[in-house]
Amino acid sequence: MPRNRQNEGFVLQKIVEGSRSFQSREFRHSVPLGIGDDAALFRSKPGHEMVLTCDWFLEGTHFLLRKHPPDAVGWKCLARAVSDIAAMGGAPRCFLLSLALPESHTGRWLGLFLGGLRRASRKFQCALVGGDTTRRNEILINVTVVGELPTGLAVRRSRAREGDLIYVSGALGGAELGLQSLRRAKGLASRNSPLLNNHLYPEPRLELGRWLAVRKLATSMMDLSDGLSSDLASLCHASGVGALLESGKIPQVQIPHDFSEHGTNPLQLALHGGDDYELLFTVPARKAKLLPKTFLGVALTAIGKITPSRKVLVVDEQGHATQLMPRGWDPFRKKL
Amino acid sequence: MPRNRQNEGFVLQKIVEGSRSFQSREFRHSVPLGIGDDAALFRSKPGHEMVLTCDWFLEGTHFLLRKHPPDAVGWKCLARAVSDIAAMGGAPRCFLLSLALPESHTGRWLGLFLGGLRRASRKFQCALVGGDTTRRNEILINVTVVGELPTGLAVRRSRAREGDLIYVSGALGGAELGLQSLRRAKGLASRNSPLLNNHLYPEPRLELGRWLAVRKLATSMMDLSDGLSSDLASLCHASGVGALLESGKIPQVQIPHDFSEHGTNPLQLALHGGDDYELLFTVPARKAKLLPKTFLGVALTAIGKITPSRKVLVVDEQGHATQLMPRGWDPFRKKL
Repeated sequence: MPRNRQNEGFVLQKIVEGSRSFQSREFRHSVPLGIGDDAALFRSKPGHEMVLTCDWFLEGTHFLLRKHPPDAVGWKCLARAVSDIAAMGGAPRCFLLSLALPESHTGRWLGLFLGGLRRASRKFQCALVGGDTTRRNEILINVTVVGELPTGLAVRRSRAREGDLIYVSGALGGAELGLQSLRRAKGLASRNSPLLNNHLYPEPRLELGRWLAVRKLATSMMDLSDGLSSDLASLCHASGVGALLESGKIPQVQIPHDFSEHGTNPLQLALHGGDDYELLFTVPARKAKLLPKTFLGVALTAIGKITPSRKVLVVDEQGHATQLMPRGWDPFRKKL
Repeated sequence: MPRNRQNEGFVLQKIVEGSRSFQSREFRHSVPLGIGDDAALFRSKPGHEMVLTCDWFLEGTHFLLRKHPPDAVGWKCLARAVSDIAAMGGAPRCFLLSLALPESHTGRWLGLFLGGLRRASRKFQCALVGGDTTRRNEILINVTVVGELPTGLAVRRSRAREGDLIYVSGALGGAELGLQSLRRAKGLASRNSPLLNNHLYPEPRLELGRWLAVRKLATSMMDLSDGLSSDLASLCHASGVGALLESGKIPQVQIPHDFSEHGTNPLQLALHGGDDYELLFTVPARKAKLLPKTFLGVALTAIGKITPSRKVLVVDEQGHATQLMPRGWDPFRKKL
């Protein structure tokens, strides 16, 4: 770990010890030098290019210290960065962790955080190889993930073409529903609540992303992190196209009884809720028959098509079309 | 730039526009996809391995908003991360910028910050390829640098051996002297003060690091970021050795008259002052004659030798040896 000073002692020692079990044997060849030096070394496979991404995960902005269990913070800070690798069709390989925290959180909180991070690291086969630690009055996390994929196969968000079908994986709105539930409950959330699971422990669609890239099925792809209305607007903007969605086709999360009393609308959750980390991708109409209904148990649903108009419209079941404005997560407009 | 949302609008647009001029033609082949997608793509040269590092640069911890000019913040946040690449013998290739800032700083401050960052990016030939932005009440910066070097040539900090000579580049203590001067002055520091130059605009020793690695002259190397007393302790700890320094040989910065009145001791600055970003390295005695006195105008000075004792001792000009305790920068012990 760069800046791995003796005197940062107990914090770094915990992370370094934790990191050993993050590193599977397969990774030892590709990472000849991990934590403990000025920088880490990584060897890319021949014929592959690397995928680079980083993500903030900040107390008060991306998680609430009094509500989010520390191991969910550990899991999610890595999962959301890994999701960007999935969205290119890549396989995650290693990550750097930058962590700033108060001295009061270098004991139990840090231990639980590293537990969640370690589970995510193993699950995504992505080894901790370096980072930076410092003291701060709030918990600040930044994660950089390095992934890999065969040269030339990366799926960009800028290549959607008129007539392509628009797909999403899974059901949308579950993470937003979990966030609403978490906000209403008192104290630290339970790690085992099914309602909170999508919000606390998202699962990036790595296998799906890779399969779509290697089979060259998707013309464009991105992950749903801010909410469908905002992310589809970004994809269309990058591709210079528009979209027509059918609201009846958008896969929505099921809302429990006590929630529907609060006026929670499943379509609104699916359109604007963030943090689902499902994949949004486009497929040429002639290739649509090659897509299964589900992939490793995750539904793949066509929700509309790409248009040349540069607008995103949504048609309801009565055939009324309205323009869909981006109303998902925007850090410069609202806070958590 | 990952999470490059339309709605983060003006912040991202500024960074994206700025980044175009960061990217020289040589880099276009190795970076087929930069800012604007879920992740960036990077192609490593055949026969090379990658060097990965990241660094915090936080308001109040690493810089003071009322004292540090925004373009120095931009320069230094990249320079210090690039210095970790120099310390392995690598060449920087590209970087990711994570930036959190208040809406009030998205105008003039951001423009000046990007100006300093752009100058550093050009100077170090290190292109901005991605990152993450968010809103926050304080300015938080994290920089990840990806470098490259021929496979197997990286210089670690763990391979110093008994009898090796210990070298430093440049003179030590200049950045700490600048920090003391900056603290005493009122208001924003001048960009052009020679006394502040080492503190505000450090120059990582990229050419020297690379030359030592490619010629296989250094057995171990690291950059001086926390101060000689702390960094040499880290190098010795990693190598399982000790060191004997000669205080009279340590190259010290010159202290202006008005500073010596404050009791500033140049040897103490050189031993414990941080942020110099010079290189600390060890060379087998038989190879010492291959080292020039200066390299590209920067002095190379032998300041002692590696011992088997696991202690770091410093001998003064009267021949008295005392143990040198690590008293450089430690974020868990003190703040800026």
